[in-house]
Amino acid sequence: MTNVLFAARPERWQSYETPLREALADAGLPDAVLSTELDPEVVEYIVYAPNSGLTDFSVFPRLKAVLNLWAGVEDVVGNETLTVPLARMVDTGLEEGMVEWVTGHVLRHHLGIDAHIHGQDAVWRAGVVPPLARDRVVTVLGLGELGTACARALAALRFDVRGWSRRPKDVPGVECHAGPDGLRDALTGAEIVVLLLPDTPATRNILDAGALRLLAPGAVVLNPGRGPLIDDDALLAALDEGHIGHATLDTFRQEPLPPDHPFWSHPRVTVTPHIASETRVPTASRVIAENIRRGEAGEPFLHLVDRGAGY
Amino acid sequence: MTNVLFAARPERWQSYETPLREALADAGLPDAVLSTELDPEVVEYIVYAPNSGLTDFSVFPRLKAVLNLWAGVEDVVGNETLTVPLARMVDTGLEEGMVEWVTGHVLRHHLGIDAHIHGQDAVWRAGVVPPLARDRVVTVLGLGELGTACARALAALRFDVRGWSRRPKDVPGVECHAGPDGLRDALTGAEIVVLLLPDTPATRNILDAGALRLLAPGAVVLNPGRGPLIDDDALLAALDEGHIGHATLDTFRQEPLPPDHPFWSHPRVTVTPHIASETRVPTASRVIAENIRRGEAGEPFLHLVDRGAGY
Repeated sequence: MTNVLFAARPERWQSYETPLREALADAGLPDAVLSTELDPEVVEYIVYAPNSGLTDFSVFPRLKAVLNLWAGVEDVVGNETLTVPLARMVDTGLEEGMVEWVTGHVLRHHLGIDAHIHGQDAVWRAGVVPPLARDRVVTVLGLGELGTACARALAALRFDVRGWSRRPKDVPGVECHAGPDGLRDALTGAEIVVLLLPDTPATRNILDAGALRLLAPGAVVLNPGRGPLIDDDALLAALDEGHIGHATLDTFRQEPLPPDHPFWSHPRVTVTPHIASETRVPTASRVIAENIRRGEAGEPFLHLVDRGAGY
Repeated sequence: MTNVLFAARPERWQSYETPLREALADAGLPDAVLSTELDPEVVEYIVYAPNSGLTDFSVFPRLKAVLNLWAGVEDVVGNETLTVPLARMVDTGLEEGMVEWVTGHVLRHHLGIDAHIHGQDAVWRAGVVPPLARDRVVTVLGLGELGTACARALAALRFDVRGWSRRPKDVPGVECHAGPDGLRDALTGAEIVVLLLPDTPATRNILDAGALRLLAPGAVVLNPGRGPLIDDDALLAALDEGHIGHATLDTFRQEPLPPDHPFWSHPRVTVTPHIASETRVPTASRVIAENIRRGEAGEPFLHLVDRGAGY
């Protein structure tokens, strides 16, 4: 018998209870106990959302692993009461959804679709044709699972794709850069920038005033990654002076984004409510059940967080 | 020496003169005479746009071929004075641009981007996440060069893609249907329909009231193909009653679309000014030069029109 505590907001339990029980049964653990309330003495695994309210892991003496429901772990990785393995969510559904959000918004800005949506003014503007994707430089910052998947999808659509990561990576069809010097090369002249870095002390404010100045005039910023990657004031200033043409933002330093935040009212900003990286319940349930199966079988966990690197 | 008449509107000549001369030289024909005015007696090839005003081909006794600048040939294929081979434009740049327009607008509607563009009202609507592409049925009518390229690109993005063509085709990753019976299967329950058929008597009004009723409630119609493929009144009625959620239209029965046409003012219609299938000058020039080289070398022409089928 395996005891699994589900620690997330109540609406998540509503979504996950049935699929997670099915996934556990499919993984060979039909007798697993899955509940939102368990005696801390018996808890072996915690299915965990960082906004659950649970912050003291020291009360679970038999805890074997914490299985994060989110891709982002910045709100839990520094928790000193957490001494057992911590796994991130790497959900194929999440990855697919992210690729769709990123390719959709890249193509939206590439094609200038907003001008058509806003400009149904009965004026036929023939001959205003966007360049081909092959002549459009798109830079993806962050080449983890999500960044790599997005960079590959954009390259498949023939965009001129550059990628950047802290450590050198190789992605077919993508001009890869690494390290602090590589960042300058990756950003210089880029027309669309996609932020898919983890939130760590090294990445915070990576898109600051200096980085924004490197981009092509009129460049577009897409942030489906983490709010703190952007220096918000620098972005607003660059939008106001016109050097940045548009920002489409899905993640923010404070979520929900406060109603009086200038991003909401800025004519060159599109806010989406943290939907790009939404975990999909059926696929995520299978990932969690597989990790519990591995724990019980003594096999290594999937998607372990590197506590030193912070992701 | 090869005599080539350029018959298109003056602005086209401005765009094409230099690239076409370069392409002819690159094709081994540096001495070719290329002009907008030539003695009809000497003309051997005509680079042709159907809106050029030239309609009588019987005055060119030495004519070897007509090389259309456009993909669409419906305005020239029935011309009885044209008795020499007629080639369509199959431009890799045009194909790439079409794939970008189609994938961009499919993703726009799939992700519900319009709601975000219009709805920057400081209300954080968490949890409203679109389905994954794998759960979205997209049907492409027409599996010629352009339709096939678009269907493949959508399948690569994991959409649930169906294709339909008059004659049976096989496209990897696409559920292919053919013939009148197959049309019903291809359309039934489709959530996004992309029209990429040629304009022939058999395809005119193919998306009529009956066909529209087969689509899923709230379905989206994309028409980057040809205006007459749609019964406009039936589409407007289906939009008004809400069965069709949106139409994004790039081609029309009359172009420019008249300022008082209801498509301009309908809240569920986006008009784009025939930009999806824009020929790109450098790539198109190479296609034309290659066909002239073939004609002079006695090799078969590329992209010949089947005069009986009408495309």
